[in-house]
Amino acid sequence: MIIGKVVGSVVSTRKSEKLIGNKFMIIEPIHQMKGGLSQESRQESRIVAIDIIGAGIGEYVLVAQGSAARIGCGMEDAPVDAAIVGIIDDGAGLE
Amino acid sequence: MIIGKVVGSVVSTRKSEKLIGNKFMIIEPIHQMKGGLSQESRQESRIVAIDIIGAGIGEYVLVAQGSAARIGCGMEDAPVDAAIVGIIDDGAGLE
Amino acid sequence: MIIGKVVGSVVSTRKSEKLIGNKFMIIEPIHQMKGGLSQESRQESRIVAIDIIGAGIGEYVLVAQGSAARIGCGMEDAPVDAAIVGIIDDGAGLE
Amino acid sequence: MIIGKVVGSVVSTRKSEKLIGNKFMIIEPIHQMKGGLSQESRQESRIVAIDIIGAGIGEYVLVAQGSAARIGCGMEDAPVDAAIVGIIDDGAGLE
Amino acid sequence: MIIGKVVGSVVSTRKSEKLIGNKFMIIEPIHQMKGGLSQESRQESRIVAIDIIGAGIGEYVLVAQGSAARIGCGMEDAPVDAAIVGIIDDGAGLE
Repeated sequence: MIIGKVVGSVVSTRKSEKLIGNKFMIIEPIHQMKGGLSQESRQESRIVAIDIIGAGIGEYVLVAQGSAARIGCGMEDAPVDAAIVGIIDDGAGLE
Repeated sequence: MIIGKVVGSVVSTRKSEKLIGNKFMIIEPIHQMKGGLSQESRQESRIVAIDIIGAGIGEYVLVAQGSAARIGCGMEDAPVDAAIVGIIDDGAGLE
Repeated sequence: MIIGKVVGSVVSTRKSEKLIGNKFMIIEPIHQMKGGLSQESRQESRIVAIDIIGAGIGEYVLVAQGSAARIGCGMEDAPVDAAIVGIIDDGAGLE
Repeated sequence: MIIGKVVGSVVSTRKSEKLIGNKFMIIEPIHQMKGGLSQESRQESRIVAIDIIGAGIGEYVLVAQGSAARIGCGMEDAPVDAAIVGIIDDGAGLE
Repeated sequence: MIIGKVVGSVVSTRKSEKLIGNKFMIIEPIHQMKGGLSQESRQESRIVAIDIIGAGIGEYVLVAQGSAARIGCGMEDAPVDAAIVGIIDDGAGLE
């Protein structure tokens, strides 16, 4: 898994019917947020994950990728390759 | 998933028979399009995805990768590792 | 697999119920720890892995990623994409 | 999928018996071939793919990676993680 | 698959019982060994693979990654994500 910060969400009306009802959160992996990296570099790494936990913008989360996102979230048949699977209790010190 | 912009398509006449009937769209991940990255860097990240939604060139899309593309799009037996699974309602502000 | 050093752990109270009971260890891949790379670069590569072996902070471990972590650790249905699957006997010389 | 150029092949006599009869082609992803990248950078990205289509050296091809290569090519039990699954009709303009 | 050079091995006494009996070889992907890349960069890319062929240190090998390593090597239930699946007949010219 990676740790990321929820920085936003996207809306998609025309999508696979298997995705209906899901929220698509934009995740910025936090280990790429150090001052030594430029703003551009950070944005490169963003991914979109569905949210089965109910994370809010600004929270630090655990994101599972690959088949783990699909199968581990009970969406075996959905085109999902990343999911928020936990919220970090205290993100202080992670950045 | 990643967010990408559809920038073109490719044609392949000689291909796996399991791919017949699919469109192959060239996707440029949008979080790599900031001015701070050179033109060369952007092109590095391009991928080819099948399109089950009907996206047009210039649209911003959600792309699922890995087994999610194959299984999530009902093509369990096809050699597909990336698929457009949604069109972003408003891509403004993403670049 | 990759070799990594266990550098910490994270706590997540609100998480997928399939993850309850697991420890989440922060892993720093050791082949990215050479002096030639900046501190920022090292942090970019960190991943979070569950631990089925009982590794301690500071130990060098083998980490399996992808479906191997889930299926190889008997957690077929859990949203897990990385797991510590062995502890290196002697990490000296690896950095 | 990615688009690559077939730049060579490798021979392996001692190999998994499940790989017998396959050709191993060396693929250079074309979106990494721009003049702005050094020769070294290009070589970093090369992968080896089996060929189920019959591509020749110099041709531009679609390469599927991951489980798509194995399952999509009818080689469920073989240790294959990349396969040429189509030949691009006209590679002009891709580099 | 990627082509790599076997540069060493690691020993792990405390490991998943499903890994008992396997050798863990350290692989350096050869397309990252050009003079233009620094020593540090090379080491970043090293991976650990099990060896089902019997490769020796210094040999050039084909490495399969992901589920192909696990399923293609008859270790469906083991936490393995990389395997040496062939030895290149003649590595001359690859570096």
